[in-house]
Amino acid sequence: MRKVAVIGVGQSRFGELWDRSFRDIMLEAGVEALEDAGLEGKEIDALFVGNMSAGRYIAQEHVATLIADYAGLAELNIPSVRVEAADASGGLAVRMAHLAVASGMHDIVIAAGVEKVTDAGELSMEIMSSSADMEWEGFVGATLSAIYAMMTKLHMKEFGTTEEDLAMVSVKNHRNAVNNPKAQFKSEISVDAVLNSPYVAEPLKLLDCAPISDGAACVVLASEEVAKQYTDTPVYIKSSAQASDYLALHSRKDLTTMQSVVTASRQAYKQAGVEARDIDVAELHDSFTIAEIMAYEDLGFIEKGKGAELIREGIVEMGGEIPVNPSGGLKACGHAVGATGVRQVAELVLQLRGGAGKRQVECETALALNIGGTGGTAVVTILGR
Amino acid sequence: MRKVAVIGVGQSRFGELWDRSFRDIMLEAGVEALEDAGLEGKEIDALFVGNMSAGRYIAQEHVATLIADYAGLAELNIPSVRVEAADASGGLAVRMAHLAVASGMHDIVIAAGVEKVTDAGELSMEIMSSSADMEWEGFVGATLSAIYAMMTKLHMKEFGTTEEDLAMVSVKNHRNAVNNPKAQFKSEISVDAVLNSPYVAEPLKLLDCAPISDGAACVVLASEEVAKQYTDTPVYIKSSAQASDYLALHSRKDLTTMQSVVTASRQAYKQAGVEARDIDVAELHDSFTIAEIMAYEDLGFIEKGKGAELIREGIVEMGGEIPVNPSGGLKACGHAVGATGVRQVAELVLQLRGGAGKRQVECETALALNIGGTGGTAVVTILGR
Repeated sequence: MRKVAVIGVGQSRFGELWDRSFRDIMLEAGVEALEDAGLEGKEIDALFVGNMSAGRYIAQEHVATLIADYAGLAELNIPSVRVEAADASGGLAVRMAHLAVASGMHDIVIAAGVEKVTDAGELSMEIMSSSADMEWEGFVGATLSAIYAMMTKLHMKEFGTTEEDLAMVSVKNHRNAVNNPKAQFKSEISVDAVLNSPYVAEPLKLLDCAPISDGAACVVLASEEVAKQYTDTPVYIKSSAQASDYLALHSRKDLTTMQSVVTASRQAYKQAGVEARDIDVAELHDSFTIAEIMAYEDLGFIEKGKGAELIREGIVEMGGEIPVNPSGGLKACGHAVGATGVRQVAELVLQLRGGAGKRQVECETALALNIGGTGGTAVVTILGR
Repeated sequence: MRKVAVIGVGQSRFGELWDRSFRDIMLEAGVEALEDAGLEGKEIDALFVGNMSAGRYIAQEHVATLIADYAGLAELNIPSVRVEAADASGGLAVRMAHLAVASGMHDIVIAAGVEKVTDAGELSMEIMSSSADMEWEGFVGATLSAIYAMMTKLHMKEFGTTEEDLAMVSVKNHRNAVNNPKAQFKSEISVDAVLNSPYVAEPLKLLDCAPISDGAACVVLASEEVAKQYTDTPVYIKSSAQASDYLALHSRKDLTTMQSVVTASRQAYKQAGVEARDIDVAELHDSFTIAEIMAYEDLGFIEKGKGAELIREGIVEMGGEIPVNPSGGLKACGHAVGATGVRQVAELVLQLRGGAGKRQVECETALALNIGGTGGTAVVTILGR
């Protein structure tokens, strides 16, 4: 397999973009990524699009071809592939694009992610919850928040994690987002504000939950050889791994561990020739605050049950040993579902290039964790200079 | 890239399966494929699932992980990837699975396709039509049938193709389906019956249109080396190519040509080292009878405008020079949307093994053409012994 570099990144603003369409936001991110890479467009060999549910959100399937068409690439007749694994769709698009280049099949490939959710109004959460097992969970009323609340309760009971610990994750991510011009919530919040926000599914409160946002992100991947023609500062994808788990929570051996995250990360570490302690910065999937704490453990940043120590001791804060979610994460940058996994990679590329402005972290090796639903899918991408 | 073989195939019955769920039919096809391959299941490295719209048909996204779970593979934590390109989703699953093995990333991979449409009742056709460009076509009332009707009218006007020619395609495919135990319509029909059936979108009549069916299909791919451990009669995927086109019809240069089919087939011929005249048998995407006639031309079986000659002269009939759709095709075997592209490959593997029973064709090289919507995506797979 060949080495694969990221030579361009782009991202729309994340948020409630009432005045913009699915096509508009995807195009915005795409144009930014092409300009960043110095490409005209005709050099592109293939397109991979991560999208969870355009069928339900905007009544449109076949969106990879739609995007190729709307981006002016239809004339090239390039293959356009939509991939879906709930909110891990973006990470999956990066992974499949990585394979397409690493294998030698293509030289320059776009991985894009996009979701336009606001048009679905009140249905947004119901659609989002169709990432869980509808027959065993969704149809009997369990939403994603309710399922994550069960994991949270058990984590609190077994390991002494507190609602304050959870709140501190949210506070950290909001503080980081202030320095991210693309973020949905560029405002600091306090631990008290989180603790006093209403319960969504006890013990998870409103400010423990990421929003469901509109947004798009795009990265341009190229083989090492081709990358050198376009940039002096290529960032390499050192590894990309994906794993699955039981979809319904009731089948899992341990509700406080996401086996998909454990498996994918260990494969990614091995492929990249690094260990958990080598990671300098990470973008982790904090759809709910508990997910970020569980991720610390399942990725091996700290042993099982002790995740909350990393937030209590400031280790995952900016300036700490492993800053987590310098972008603001899903909680504060926004969670545009199928776009999130691509956005995470785009953020880490900026960090590794030293182009992250006021939120810059000193780093050489970076990790992105993108999760589908309650952990049915996990995609881990490790990047480095 | 390594050579990739198909070592197992399976298929559910296609049709209106009111008493069976999405999970049931997928499992039926999967179990048949594993038994055919002589696998237990634990040997599987990854799963690729083609599905167009489970989100709308059964309110469930994240279906690749659902299938891995329900098939008893969750314990393996293998990567599970759903791909979508409207009704070319199945062909796309085969293509991505092929890449995963050819690249050396995996040794044994499942490509599956599934759609459960009946539960959506009257919405089925509306959902199917979301493979077209909703903003320019769907929201102003154009269904897939209406769009194909426009292509048909132009083909008739420019090239003299007649409603009788179209009817003969349907008659042929129904005749072939009689010998396919998995087919939805195992009944012969007459040219008169087609001509006297009501117009759906003039000049296309009810019996020119494939049904929208429930169904699932599954193929097991393995590297050449691994394949030899499991079978003495491996069938090889000689090439797999995909191309896109403008999604909306109004942007295309020529409404009687699907540029995606032209591009994908030429790439596939080149990769496989064959030409159109080397194809002994083909499964073509006859979602509407005109699509099969246009495919004859766009694949280079005959020059543009003369497609109808192949059906008039019996060249594409069983016993003709290039039998097309021995399975009965989408029209008579049934069109289970995301399953179709996988089913086509499964049929051709049976043909190449000499295991197609009463519908056996003498063949060494076979071609499958799977189309998304009105040609926005085309996937061509060439198989051989």
